[in-house]
This record gives sequence, structure tokens and C-alpha cells, in this order.
Amino acid sequence: MEEKEISQAVVGRLPRYFRYLGELKDEGIERVSSQELSDIMQVTASQIRQDLNNFGGFGQQGYGYNVGFLYDEIGKILGLHREHNLIIVGAGHLGQALFNYMNFERRGFIFRGIFDNDPQVCGRKIRGVMVRPMDEMESFVRENDIDIAVLTIPKASAVEVAEQLVGCGIKGIWNFAHVDLRVPDRIQVENVHLSDSLMKLSYNLSSRACEK
Amino acid sequence: MEEKEISQAVVGRLPRYFRYLGELKDEGIERVSSQELSDIMQVTASQIRQDLNNFGGFGQQGYGYNVGFLYDEIGKILGLHREHNLIIVGAGHLGQALFNYMNFERRGFIFRGIFDNDPQVCGRKIRGVMVRPMDEMESFVRENDIDIAVLTIPKASAVEVAEQLVGCGIKGIWNFAHVDLRVPDRIQVENVHLSDSLMKLSYNLSSRACEK
Repeated sequence: MEEKEISQAVVGRLPRYFRYLGELKDEGIERVSSQELSDIMQVTASQIRQDLNNFGGFGQQGYGYNVGFLYDEIGKILGLHREHNLIIVGAGHLGQALFNYMNFERRGFIFRGIFDNDPQVCGRKIRGVMVRPMDEMESFVRENDIDIAVLTIPKASAVEVAEQLVGCGIKGIWNFAHVDLRVPDRIQVENVHLSDSLMKLSYNLSSRACEK
Repeated sequence: MEEKEISQAVVGRLPRYFRYLGELKDEGIERVSSQELSDIMQVTASQIRQDLNNFGGFGQQGYGYNVGFLYDEIGKILGLHREHNLIIVGAGHLGQALFNYMNFERRGFIFRGIFDNDPQVCGRKIRGVMVRPMDEMESFVRENDIDIAVLTIPKASAVEVAEQLVGCGIKGIWNFAHVDLRVPDRIQVENVHLSDSLMKLSYNLSSRACEK
């Protein structure tokens, strides 16, 4: 398929299409119109057509979309047809929670290792995998073809660890540390700033309260 | 301060301003120009001026922004000057991770209770707080002035639990379940769809790979 530059706003909506199409597929539904998809997803049908047109469009006039085909194609676009090797840096509560979440593995995101700088934590096993000390991280990344690192460490150490990861060839960072990483453009960073999300909720509660 | 409707895009950027201003404040810096803030935050100075103008603008020509004042004002806008009472529904790994994360409490988000439907988990203590059974949730929300519920339960039960929460007067839901909740407009929902975030990273890795 021909690839063109598409906006991050569209990219951000693709996983949601993928999720809804997966549910339709599980229900045995074979085809869906943009209007039906619009009703289920509560976005406009024209938005749906526009978004999917970025990838050449999969719909046919008068037929709609083939659910299974569209699901597979979006999966491929999202890179889910290949496996990713991940490590988690930071074996605290959040790191362990992510490591234990099996749905990621079902989608091809395989956690190969977990690292921590606390000697009390190193050597413990999580899902049968031993927590390794930080000084083994760089060689592990190189030797195990790791492409994504998940950072679940405090902000104070995140910047330095990100630099180490870039140095040993990581391609993407899923960053839960509450800091903006400065890495070369070739490295993809996806931030999950939980505090920001909670503050946004707090704002919406406050502004709603003012309206009363 | 006069309130007007501002876009969710601006709201989404406020916590980031708050974070950077907090860091400047901690470094003892008293004033900052939109250009300096632009350099640190890597957004344009005009974006910064526009965003802050939504709130009447705090800058003065030739002086810039007073860091402490702006920090406090954005904090108030975000509703951080008052306490929020939270419960967590789902005492799995993620629920426990959030419950244990003290930074939320420092910002006024106080976890008052944690609930689970697994009898094996109920009665256990996390940070000294006992995990309660789900059938106590509704009365607990009513009796303890709970305004935010954090959903860290599987998608299958999230929709039903959200309805119960709405019924007992919850105002906001911080939703980690991988499903879009259907709740009345007066209820604020902030979603953290971790799988979507990881798929977005995967997309960016794949599309980058194609460019080579």
C-alpha cells in the first residue's frame, strides 16, 4: 500500500477504529456502513470516511466496509502484524502492572525483560521473569533485538536512562515518567502523563461546577 | 476570574504549563518571558500567549510572566486548590499502582477507598486501607462525598459499574477500562486507553520503518 504522511490526530483515532471493528468481527458482523459505524462510535460518518481515505479508503459505494478486511488492514497499518520486543525499566507497582497485563502480548508486544536499580527488587521474579539490575540493560537491549522500552521510573532518572537507551539502539520509548524526554527525531516517543490526565479531569469538574 | 468556554486542546496543554512553571518555581526563577518558556517547552511563543490569553492573560508587555503567580493561577484553573475524594474500583495491579502513587495525593487527589469483586482480594490492606467488596461501593460513595471514581476493571464490567456510579452521584470517572463509557453529559470522563497509546507508538515505528 502506498504510504503518505498522515496527521497524528488520525493516527490517534486508528486504535479506536481497530477496537470497534474487532468487536463487530467478534459478533460475526461482516459488513458495516460508515453511517452504522458512526452511530456506534459516536463520530460523524464524514469523519470516518475522511480518516479511512488516508489509507486509500476501503469502502465501496452502496456496500460499506468489509469488517474483517478493514480490521486486518488497520491492524497492519498499526504495525500489529509483526512482533515487538519490549523491556520495562522500573519494576515498581506500575511497571509490574504493565508487565502483568497479558492483552499487550496478545497484540504482539512481548515483554522480554524488566529492570530496576533497587538491589532489593533485582532477582525477584514477575511472571517467571527475573528483575535485572540496570547495568545489564544496555547489553540486554543489544542482544535481544529490543525495539521498545517502557519507562516507569521517576522523572529524575528518566532523562539519563532515555539517553542510554538511545545509545544502545532503541527505536521507541513508551514514557510514563512525568517529564518530556529530549531524544533524537528518529526515536519515537509516546507519553502517558497520568498526572496531566487527572488534572484535565479536575479542570473539567471545576469548570462544570462554575456553570451551575 | 471570568470563565469562558475553552477548547479541550488548550485544557490538555494546561497541566504541561503547570509542570514547567512548577519546575521554574522550584529553581527560584521569578519571571519568564513567553520566548523563554517557548524555548524550554518547545512550543511557539505565540501558542503560549494564545493559550494563556484564554484566561485573561497573565503577562505584561516587557516583563513577561510572574512564575509564582502564573503557577498558582493555572493551579486554580485546574481545580487543584481544592481536594478531590477518589475511590479506585478494581484492586488489580494497575489499581494498586495508582493507589500507591503518592504524587496524586500531594496534588489534592485523596484516595478514600478501593474496591474489588474478588473475595480473595477483599479484606487485604493497601497502604493501610482495606479493600472493600463491590456491594459496599454505592453507599461508600454517598457517605464519603466521593467525586471521582477510577475504573481499573476489565471492559466487560466497566459499563455496568459506571452506571452504578452515576446512580450514586459520582461527578467524574477516570477510566482505564478499554471501553468507551456511555454516561450522561453532566459526568466528566477522562479516558486512559493504554492499548491505544501503545498501538500509536507501534504505528509510528512502522511508518518510520517504511520511510527508510
